[in-house]
Amino acid sequence: MISHAIAADGLVSPQEVRLACREGRLSGTTRGLAIGYVQCNLVVIRERYAYEFLLYCQRNQRACPVLEVTDTGDPEPKHLAPGADLRTDLPRYAVYRDGRRLPDLTSIKELWRDDFVSFLIGSGISFDQALEKAGVQTTQDRWVLRTSLQTVPAGRFQGPLVVTMRWLSPAQAITATQVTARFPFNHGAPLHIGDPTVIGADLMEPYFGPPVEAIPTSIVPVFWACGVTPQEAALSAKVDVMITHSPGHGFVTDLEASKLALP
Amino acid sequence: MISHAIAADGLVSPQEVRLACREGRLSGTTRGLAIGYVQCNLVVIRERYAYEFLLYCQRNQRACPVLEVTDTGDPEPKHLAPGADLRTDLPRYAVYRDGRRLPDLTSIKELWRDDFVSFLIGSGISFDQALEKAGVQTTQDRWVLRTSLQTVPAGRFQGPLVVTMRWLSPAQAITATQVTARFPFNHGAPLHIGDPTVIGADLMEPYFGPPVEAIPTSIVPVFWACGVTPQEAALSAKVDVMITHSPGHGFVTDLEASKLALP
Repeated sequence: MISHAIAADGLVSPQEVRLACREGRLSGTTRGLAIGYVQCNLVVIRERYAYEFLLYCQRNQRACPVLEVTDTGDPEPKHLAPGADLRTDLPRYAVYRDGRRLPDLTSIKELWRDDFVSFLIGSGISFDQALEKAGVQTTQDRWVLRTSLQTVPAGRFQGPLVVTMRWLSPAQAITATQVTARFPFNHGAPLHIGDPTVIGADLMEPYFGPPVEAIPTSIVPVFWACGVTPQEAALSAKVDVMITHSPGHGFVTDLEASKLALP
Repeated sequence: MISHAIAADGLVSPQEVRLACREGRLSGTTRGLAIGYVQCNLVVIRERYAYEFLLYCQRNQRACPVLEVTDTGDPEPKHLAPGADLRTDLPRYAVYRDGRRLPDLTSIKELWRDDFVSFLIGSGISFDQALEKAGVQTTQDRWVLRTSLQTVPAGRFQGPLVVTMRWLSPAQAITATQVTARFPFNHGAPLHIGDPTVIGADLMEPYFGPPVEAIPTSIVPVFWACGVTPQEAALSAKVDVMITHSPGHGFVTDLEASKLALP
């Protein structure tokens, strides 16, 4: 079992992380692993939904930065991690049938179909590392929230924009805005700063994090579009089968995060 | 007839340009019209090819920055120009059947089908204006060239990367690199500077511009990915019917070019 302590020391390459998943030695979070490499959210759906889903992502690029779409039936992400296998190389998968979540799996080899298409979507985990480097802590005071902002629909896919909220000091909020603006292909700059009610952020039922009763006056809430958005849209579209990474258990690519950033 | 002199003075809004096209008063180039607004390349194909084509664009984002895809059968680009009609609001259309170009049209109302999907793809005309503002002339010494670089295929769509080449002074090459890097969603920074043979640029048979015998030693050739690339891919895929803007006769959107640029 690869411990997070080892990972946090940056001793683990993307290849090592994926191999550990494939061999059943890693089923925990990828947060803190293979530091400096882009991690992706995974969405696997049938080809019959692929056009509408890709269109949905195109129309909501900020929340859904598609970094790779595999050929139909092919589990290899040839661009982001040649030789990898999306059926085995993530630590943990969430499986949905008709919008209902089934127990998580550590491999989806048994479920694989010839008409599956895999979408790899940029994850905030990638720029967390740039934030940490700039002195902005990323592990605490972080939420994933539904908002009252609506995404642009495409066919059967639609739904609310989901955001990541961080509680930062005013100075950190400024730094974080600058750092994340350098990642236009990975959520980019914040879409909102300050009063959560302006975007209708649902503080009482977060997807991630404890309910928020009150926001301390000393901090600034900062909001970014979140890669959970397309997953929620696919869920509410009730596609017959959808497989995703389990939250926090992303796909580690060979792409260096710095290559995704503007200078 | 709207003259280019009027246009060049910036007297024409996007709405006015589109109306002039619709009413048959403009069939000339859109270069220099509605300065400051994003212009787009248009590709109209049948829905049966739309997924593979969108995927091709996603895989070759630098050359194919998709800014909007309309709903099937709907000629209105709701995001970039609400109320506009892509069947009439461009000055001139190129029509292809089975890969063969037919005579240009000034309206495609007669050809329109319920299964047509329109792709609006970022055009270099948009950042020409930013270049001009920075003192880099854009009307002279500009070519569109095939290269020996191959794009990433998607289904039936594949082919060479097409580039825009400009001849600039060394100082202008540096300025132009900085200016265009601010447009990551519209071709972005140059992909090559200097020796054209490195990318196999075809200087003898340009798509646009005169054949190049020799490059003056005082200038630096600078190359950007070009929005003609996806059109060429669709052509060589021999889709049964494809309609595009006629070169230089783009679709003028309501989007301010500065909003597409990073600060």
